[in-house]
Amino acid sequence: MNKTIGLIAGNRAFPIHVARAARRRGWLVAAVGLREETDPALESEVDRMHWVTLSELGGIPDWLKGAGVREVILAGQIQARRLVQSGQSFDPATRQLLARLPDRSGDSAMKLAVRVLQSKGFRVLHSAFLLKEWIPVRGDLTRLIPMADQRKELRSGLRLARKLAAWGVGQTLILKQGAVAAVEGMEGTDETIERAGRIAGPGCVVVKACGRGKDMRFDIPVVGEETLRRLAAVQAAGIGVEAGRTLLFDRPALIALADRLGLFVTAL
Amino acid sequence: MNKTIGLIAGNRAFPIHVARAARRRGWLVAAVGLREETDPALESEVDRMHWVTLSELGGIPDWLKGAGVREVILAGQIQARRLVQSGQSFDPATRQLLARLPDRSGDSAMKLAVRVLQSKGFRVLHSAFLLKEWIPVRGDLTRLIPMADQRKELRSGLRLARKLAAWGVGQTLILKQGAVAAVEGMEGTDETIERAGRIAGPGCVVVKACGRGKDMRFDIPVVGEETLRRLAAVQAAGIGVEAGRTLLFDRPALIALADRLGLFVTAL
Repeated sequence: MNKTIGLIAGNRAFPIHVARAARRRGWLVAAVGLREETDPALESEVDRMHWVTLSELGGIPDWLKGAGVREVILAGQIQARRLVQSGQSFDPATRQLLARLPDRSGDSAMKLAVRVLQSKGFRVLHSAFLLKEWIPVRGDLTRLIPMADQRKELRSGLRLARKLAAWGVGQTLILKQGAVAAVEGMEGTDETIERAGRIAGPGCVVVKACGRGKDMRFDIPVVGEETLRRLAAVQAAGIGVEAGRTLLFDRPALIALADRLGLFVTAL
Repeated sequence: MNKTIGLIAGNRAFPIHVARAARRRGWLVAAVGLREETDPALESEVDRMHWVTLSELGGIPDWLKGAGVREVILAGQIQARRLVQSGQSFDPATRQLLARLPDRSGDSAMKLAVRVLQSKGFRVLHSAFLLKEWIPVRGDLTRLIPMADQRKELRSGLRLARKLAAWGVGQTLILKQGAVAAVEGMEGTDETIERAGRIAGPGCVVVKACGRGKDMRFDIPVVGEETLRRLAAVQAAGIGVEAGRTLLFDRPALIALADRLGLFVTAL
């Protein structure tokens, strides 16, 4: 019998890429999706699908057990804003879980999810272990490469972005001529890019980093097509990501797109 | 003959408050305003007024000398975005000045302005030295005070906001239930508040801090009526500012307004 892997799916394309990679290896995939967050297209990429709302998180472990799952991957973000917006109702089990959170950051929520899953006997796998070939080592990835002053800006930006991420601020920092144009909070990368472009104008340089001490099992930064399209829309120069700690979706298609859009992508 | 003080005026109400305080002491005020940035109402509050555009900054010292000025106050911000937006033309003297900037942050621009003024024989005064009674010491300033968990949130937020400010990111950090909702970049405090409210919902807590190592002669954080009105509009809980390092405009009117709006203002 094939091994069944559990996939707890956040938003966007990350869970879909994981599901495809798992099935290419011959595994069955039992996925849990969060309504209004997880892409409905995931359903056709997995063997069993269980949809839950934010108020039904408490029942996930039992469903996974019933599906014969021992190993779990968490892939894709859950927007932190959903945990702090009022008017949200939670069932008693979920309320109990949320009461254990030190704060309502996405990071704390994911850490708690991992602890709960482990305490119930699941093994939590690194979310990118099936997609390692899409994690770049250091180097320029596109035909267009940063100019000398942009490289300097990227390096100092990356140092700062790492600190911001480690302190619980967002992963994305946008610079223009050495000055900080925009910092990501709960609004997400795409809105941060839009804002920087609107305020600082063309030529922005974007860095995306993972904080030290972050659990890469669920917190690896990702860059996808949508990010590149936003960068092009505001005439940004390009993006610098952390070598060995960023997932590019999917890497060959993404780099081809960056080349078409005239953006640089470089791993620092 | 009365002493003439030079006032290099950035945006909003700060320069107006400085001009009034100086004239209350019997000084003459010779002010330089930046077109499209400085409030035109300043003109009726000073004795001599000189309007410049961003392309005419190089001529400021000569004009101040001609007005008999020896001591200068820089008050009010100049939006950093103006220094990085393209399509901006600069005269040769200003271009030379800008070429000396390590980056295009407002902080670097102000530091350079101070150096240039000092090298031409001017004494640069602390921008708040005429308004010291509006700088709070530690304590709650409003009838409404933070709850215990909000105090905890304010204290950890202030630690982080100080670091952010020292690193050249903005002064404002907005939290909701311990999670970072929004961080200020070039967009300014008011837009940051609007965003946090839109994304994280009611109940946000705002902190505003001055980075260590900042030159308080031109970089003291300020809170005015507009900030409080924005806070009320997004149903934020209140604001925590750095004791001894924040100017409240004007303090009695501001605290009365906060009380009317049901916001807390506390100095940490």
